[in-house]
Amino acid sequence: MTGGNLFAAGPAASRDEVPALREEMVDALVETPGVRIERIVSTGQATPPGQWYDSARDEWVVLLMGAARLRFETEPAARALAPGDWLHIPAHARHRVEWTDPARPTVWLAVHFPA
Amino acid sequence: MTGGNLFAAGPAASRDEVPALREEMVDALVETPGVRIERIVSTGQATPPGQWYDSARDEWVVLLMGAARLRFETEPAARALAPGDWLHIPAHARHRVEWTDPARPTVWLAVHFPA
Repeated sequence: MTGGNLFAAGPAASRDEVPALREEMVDALVETPGVRIERIVSTGQATPPGQWYDSARDEWVVLLMGAARLRFETEPAARALAPGDWLHIPAHARHRVEWTDPARPTVWLAVHFPA
Repeated sequence: MTGGNLFAAGPAASRDEVPALREEMVDALVETPGVRIERIVSTGQATPPGQWYDSARDEWVVLLMGAARLRFETEPAARALAPGDWLHIPAHARHRVEWTDPARPTVWLAVHFPA
């Protein structure tokens, strides 16, 4: 049985010690042929301009700490996400992270599964 | 696209208005042949004495708010869970909820998927 804490520092570095990593930190918590569960910690990163996520799998995502803005290609404006906010993003629903709070870590939990 | 907030009141009643429901509140957020994602709100409930959960599927579970104690049949003592604590429970790992905080809501997120 494996376990951990979503809000604890990752294997690489403590959030407190390294408040502004260059890259998002992504930790796979479960990886099977059918499902991938990952914790993502953002520290101000956003999807590069003009780029969109376009996944062949559905994604269920929740923001657990911090703040972010998520934009869908079919929507005119980004959605502001606060702790507890979750979305079920269908496969191929193109989206991008417009903003994550640069002043504090933003913790996401994402579950990827077949459409 | 569906969405919501894990910490918002459920469809049935507000946690603030009904601090001690008789039953746990379970809301399925995603239900496909391969995966089920659910939010559970406990208000002091525990698994009845002598009963164990024994699932044919794996379960990944995280406690997001509140406090609980989770006991596995193969372990001598219950594990205390605090916000952010997660466990990957293999199929047929018999377990029970020994205690949830009666003084405040305990919010869980559970993902069930094939072993």
